[in-house]
Amino acid sequence: MGRLSAFPSALLAVAWATTAHAAATSPATGADPLPSWNDTAPKHAIVGFVDTVTRPGTPGFVPPAERIAVFDSDGTLWAEWPVYFQLQFALDRVKALAPQHPEWQTKEPYRYVLSGDMKSFAASGPKSVISVIEVAHSGMTTDEFEKTVRDWLHTARHPQTHQPYAAMIYKPMVELLAYLRANGFKTFIVSGGSAEFMRVFAESLYGIPPEQVVGSQGKLEYQVRDGKPVLVKLPEVQFVDDKEGKPIGIQTFIGRRPLAAFGNSDADLEMFEWTTSGPGSRFVMIVHHDDDEREWAYDRRSRIGTLDKAWDDAKAKSWTVVSMKDDWATVFPWTLQAPARDAR
Amino acid sequence: MGRLSAFPSALLAVAWATTAHAAATSPATGADPLPSWNDTAPKHAIVGFVDTVTRPGTPGFVPPAERIAVFDSDGTLWAEWPVYFQLQFALDRVKALAPQHPEWQTKEPYRYVLSGDMKSFAASGPKSVISVIEVAHSGMTTDEFEKTVRDWLHTARHPQTHQPYAAMIYKPMVELLAYLRANGFKTFIVSGGSAEFMRVFAESLYGIPPEQVVGSQGKLEYQVRDGKPVLVKLPEVQFVDDKEGKPIGIQTFIGRRPLAAFGNSDADLEMFEWTTSGPGSRFVMIVHHDDDEREWAYDRRSRIGTLDKAWDDAKAKSWTVVSMKDDWATVFPWTLQAPARDAR
Repeated sequence: MGRLSAFPSALLAVAWATTAHAAATSPATGADPLPSWNDTAPKHAIVGFVDTVTRPGTPGFVPPAERIAVFDSDGTLWAEWPVYFQLQFALDRVKALAPQHPEWQTKEPYRYVLSGDMKSFAASGPKSVISVIEVAHSGMTTDEFEKTVRDWLHTARHPQTHQPYAAMIYKPMVELLAYLRANGFKTFIVSGGSAEFMRVFAESLYGIPPEQVVGSQGKLEYQVRDGKPVLVKLPEVQFVDDKEGKPIGIQTFIGRRPLAAFGNSDADLEMFEWTTSGPGSRFVMIVHHDDDEREWAYDRRSRIGTLDKAWDDAKAKSWTVVSMKDDWATVFPWTLQAPARDAR
Repeated sequence: MGRLSAFPSALLAVAWATTAHAAATSPATGADPLPSWNDTAPKHAIVGFVDTVTRPGTPGFVPPAERIAVFDSDGTLWAEWPVYFQLQFALDRVKALAPQHPEWQTKEPYRYVLSGDMKSFAASGPKSVISVIEVAHSGMTTDEFEKTVRDWLHTARHPQTHQPYAAMIYKPMVELLAYLRANGFKTFIVSGGSAEFMRVFAESLYGIPPEQVVGSQGKLEYQVRDGKPVLVKLPEVQFVDDKEGKPIGIQTFIGRRPLAAFGNSDADLEMFEWTTSGPGSRFVMIVHHDDDEREWAYDRRSRIGTLDKAWDDAKAKSWTVVSMKDDWATVFPWTLQAPARDAR
């Protein structure tokens, strides 16, 4: 699965990603603001919804201040296969930090990671994932963490596409973000992933500033070191922004019910329910991973996530389901050069 | 103390407050964007700072996305005397809910509140304050809470000025918020008070949308009632946004170090330190309550708050201190009609 090739000048793709969102084509110019979308039902649905809520003097009109759109991150704005990129970052950190931790060579789960035995790592359960995430996400200041993530983004490559992770974003979704903003929407990420992790790249990749990134949070401690204040990331969870945590995160961080929500799994279901429970027109869109050529086909049920109840609800409630295969003209911002099936 | 009178058409003041912030005078027009400020050092300092960071091509220039300005609420954007208005809201809620709680007539601290014995209430310590805040801020959905606060704002009056609380905002600060926004700043409230409380009025009074209000937070629970999702406010603290909590709140909710911070007490000190520890030009302003005629003169030390270490630091670090008496031409958006000394 996954007909994806290495694009030789991968950094070009990053350059694209960092500027494309700024060039939002206004619908007023007549140019298509969503060129990576096929002319199918999902595109019609989103354009129709935007028309409904932005036409002054009509019953569906919503003032710009209330045009809140929330987006899941993994599998919705960028890929999540074969492992969440944040977990890959954490695994890479364990390898980078290993010289300072000789004890890890014989200690689970670190030795699995260091010896590349990912089968045993996976089998060792969620506690192992948490240990590895903790190593990568705590015990340093927020400034140090930001630098670590930035360095990783500049050097790490996706194991199957050999692209930098910043190039693994979905071009149609970047266009959609820009289209919504051009229509007065304020766009937010609401993800189960770490807010501090996503904030390092959300502005350059998606045009979403840090203050519009809602995610899971670790506890922070204020310290003064050599007369200078720092915030230290502690190995304790402050807030989990997943499942029922998503509406809670929306209320806590945004304080306003969204008008539109975009996701790809059952972990987004409560966010969808919360969004559509408000009065007037609401919009829900589910990205369906069914493109085995250009991306990966893996739901409704997979080890990465489940699209089960949300799928049934989408049918029952007329939510919009996007088939990556049928509805997207382009998936990633880079082109498939020489099709080659990589190891999965 | 406090030469403040009732303004007969108090609702006019509210009407003013709800529209004034929208009419930000652009500095480009030549009109004074800060007419309620005297032509003294603090006004020069803020205008000079804004010039420094907004002039393209100069070393001090800061891109708009990084122009984050954070404001304490109580005593900085609106008054806080004789008690924090949020506590007054809670005390009023206890009275409103008393008929449903006959047991409160004989139970501390409620019976103090119900009998108007505020001396005993104050003497019974912070635990009593927490009990009363809890009654007012939990055990209902977020939608119900919002309605309660809104109703209170429409009916309650300040005990000494007899103004609605929405009229107890500082006109110079509302002008300052608009002036900063006209210069590309994004303005945030960062307060020890409840975020959910402030969000009900921050947009209409200050032009600050809910998603830019950082404050203390209670825990929320997602529930589905009759097929409809609700968020229920629990009597548990999720986050305290005060003192060292302020830089933590800024990092957690905004994710970017502010360029400018405005406060009035030692509870803002860590926010000031965090703000000024960033590179380049930073700005800190302290509002000093020294006007016994038009407001209340009560610091450096009072039962409401302390301006002690922050005061010393302001001297040592050349932070800007605003004398309400000397530096503000106007304090509130309404006019003193017939001076009359109210009971304190």
